[in-house]
Amino acid sequence: MAVDELRLGLIGLGTVGTGVVQLLAQNADALARKRNCHLRLVHVASRSIHDKPHPDIGAARVSTDPWAVVHDPDVDVVVELIGGTEPARPLILEAIERGKAVVTANKALLALHAEEIFSAAEARGVHLGFEASVAGGIPIIRTLRESLAADRNRALFGIVNGTCNYILTMMREEDAEFEVALRSAQDMGLAEADPSFDIDGVDAAQKLTLLAMLAFGVRVPFEAVYTEGIRQLSQPDILFAREFGYEIKLLAIAKEENGAVEVRVHPTMVPQRSLLAGVGGAYNAIFVQGEALGSSLYFGSGAGSLPTATSVVSDIMEVTRTHGVASPRHLPGLGLAWKDLRSVPIRSIDDVVSEYYVRFQASDGPGVLGTIAGILGEQSISIASVIQRGQSDGDATVPLVLRTHAACERNLKTALQQLNQLSVVQGQPVCIRIEENLG
Amino acid sequence: MAVDELRLGLIGLGTVGTGVVQLLAQNADALARKRNCHLRLVHVASRSIHDKPHPDIGAARVSTDPWAVVHDPDVDVVVELIGGTEPARPLILEAIERGKAVVTANKALLALHAEEIFSAAEARGVHLGFEASVAGGIPIIRTLRESLAADRNRALFGIVNGTCNYILTMMREEDAEFEVALRSAQDMGLAEADPSFDIDGVDAAQKLTLLAMLAFGVRVPFEAVYTEGIRQLSQPDILFAREFGYEIKLLAIAKEENGAVEVRVHPTMVPQRSLLAGVGGAYNAIFVQGEALGSSLYFGSGAGSLPTATSVVSDIMEVTRTHGVASPRHLPGLGLAWKDLRSVPIRSIDDVVSEYYVRFQASDGPGVLGTIAGILGEQSISIASVIQRGQSDGDATVPLVLRTHAACERNLKTALQQLNQLSVVQGQPVCIRIEENLG
Repeated sequence: MAVDELRLGLIGLGTVGTGVVQLLAQNADALARKRNCHLRLVHVASRSIHDKPHPDIGAARVSTDPWAVVHDPDVDVVVELIGGTEPARPLILEAIERGKAVVTANKALLALHAEEIFSAAEARGVHLGFEASVAGGIPIIRTLRESLAADRNRALFGIVNGTCNYILTMMREEDAEFEVALRSAQDMGLAEADPSFDIDGVDAAQKLTLLAMLAFGVRVPFEAVYTEGIRQLSQPDILFAREFGYEIKLLAIAKEENGAVEVRVHPTMVPQRSLLAGVGGAYNAIFVQGEALGSSLYFGSGAGSLPTATSVVSDIMEVTRTHGVASPRHLPGLGLAWKDLRSVPIRSIDDVVSEYYVRFQASDGPGVLGTIAGILGEQSISIASVIQRGQSDGDATVPLVLRTHAACERNLKTALQQLNQLSVVQGQPVCIRIEENLG
Repeated sequence: MAVDELRLGLIGLGTVGTGVVQLLAQNADALARKRNCHLRLVHVASRSIHDKPHPDIGAARVSTDPWAVVHDPDVDVVVELIGGTEPARPLILEAIERGKAVVTANKALLALHAEEIFSAAEARGVHLGFEASVAGGIPIIRTLRESLAADRNRALFGIVNGTCNYILTMMREEDAEFEVALRSAQDMGLAEADPSFDIDGVDAAQKLTLLAMLAFGVRVPFEAVYTEGIRQLSQPDILFAREFGYEIKLLAIAKEENGAVEVRVHPTMVPQRSLLAGVGGAYNAIFVQGEALGSSLYFGSGAGSLPTATSVVSDIMEVTRTHGVASPRHLPGLGLAWKDLRSVPIRSIDDVVSEYYVRFQASDGPGVLGTIAGILGEQSISIASVIQRGQSDGDATVPLVLRTHAACERNLKTALQQLNQLSVVQGQPVCIRIEENLG
């Protein structure tokens, strides 16, 4: 028997929650027509609902206690938009226990407690939607779980943190130094007062945990994701990257190769002609390589009130397909039931093979390049190209920039340690990984 | 009760059919695990199955008559991959009548007989999947129907014909003339001996019919799509486009504005910095603008055996969600039941407002530009910029190229007729529409 109404309980009236309320109101008739089902907001919980202005929530009950929504027998779907692991974790587990469908944008919770949350939803047979948890309005979760489900994915490369992409775009287009671009992002409301969650790559690593599990059908512990942020980037590297034909992006990279999975977040040089290089500002994009499909890319707004709300509401609409159906068949959140996900080795960053950009500050004497090439050669690292600037302003050292062929990270580290001890090399070399094969 | 097997009947073993057979075999175990359901090929029909080599179809029955598949009581899902309207239309209608799910890649059939096919599937309550009918492996159908369902779409711009995009990319990157690039496409197997279906825009218009219905929830008769191909393009326009900062793409454009819908396929100048400008070769991409989501883009392989097969097989997997379920809730193919689609006016091309590129061959005398600007001005068309080349090789005429501000197509046509009658203008002016707002 079809239900003609789905009763929603919303926890959290922040940026995304406000967008969800607006979208449900604005498009109410169209949404109801699409699913033969009215989406009715019956209960809203927000700690500050009595203190701050909030959008019109119609006839919905109001609580300051999120547990009131979970305990409300009139609520069919709990929409959790408070973020963080506590109290979101017990709230969602209790909603599942009570047989309610759950829709959430909570990447941290799902990345850090994947087994607990997904297993609980599968055991209880409830729908768990989390499209909004990764890349805001880009439908990458549904795409990986359903549209690309027939294929075997090989690799995934994502620009999934809009704050970092905004900063890198500003460094590239306005010659801004990192600190200036960061302050601009903070002024725009794109970065927090403490920006470390974004700029140190933690946010991207949480999203990558979910994307990698979906893309390959494997278990990925969040702790296994290698994470490096963008603080150390500076103008010389942006400029030399362009001379070599690259742009620098913070990429979330997942690959499955030779029985192991790589999951890593770090600044990456991508070819200027690649689509990812053209993704500017706070936008997000995910590039996927599949065995049968080849290259595909999904681009859009990775954050923001209404863009993210479109993902939340599309997840709510998805609930109408199974709610009230006798013996509904739920798709598991990660495309495979948790118990069916494969456990495969996660490759250590030391075993990753990559091409590298390396920038030294070195003496401008004869034979310096030869010495450096010799040390790299001993570690089986060969040089693909070099930029060496002549001395122009009386400095004792000049930048020496090189691009390597594919090499093992462990070997590169050994070589860099040896190079650091040379008297002709000053300070720490800067080292950025390169990804060539992006379509 | 869950079924543990879905029995597939495949009609057509051409490029896509072969890919489907391969993909089902290669990924059999993974697909079964994802849906707790084995996808078993039980019947294959192909006229030439006894005459030509074909992939291993295991224990499946073999027929040369496609009706044998539709009539086979062991077939749960009819996968129609022969294309064209006859006999695909009666085959699919009969499959629906018998309560079988249908998966098809047949854009022509769905664009030309949308009402008949979609209404039949909705009346009988069977699943109709057609992801592979538009843009091959790009999951644009599911994305519009489900992921973007919460939003109100404003506009859609698609590179949906890989043959044209290959030709235009070759004209752009290798300075090839149209005929040379077309022959190259034919040599690559990207264009037919009679290439008119692709290069005259008919293929793109069929796809646009489906995309526009999905994007806006309106009825779009195929005949209402304005269609112009790429035959008339030549090197001077490619080069002048670049001087103005554009690339030329064959775009399928749909917009909903002021209560009317525009649906048009024509060569279009797009800004060089836009993502669509970077879509090269035979790739496809669809750019969507939504009220809440803003810009999003979906890129990938628009054709080819295995890429398109990923869409077919993902549609087959979708059937497992409802097959054998008591009172299943099917999503209507176009996101709304046919009867719920809105009927809105389709704007005539004469009423479309656009910016234009216009190239004349004109005398190099004083006052020519003034005369031309005067005639355009009388039609309320103002000039945004001009490229006028001085005479260099003794020719009596020189190219005069201009970019207009937004103008109504009817006014531009009137102005061009008047300009044609001037003695200083030689031959037919070339006129290409410009789209500025692509993200």
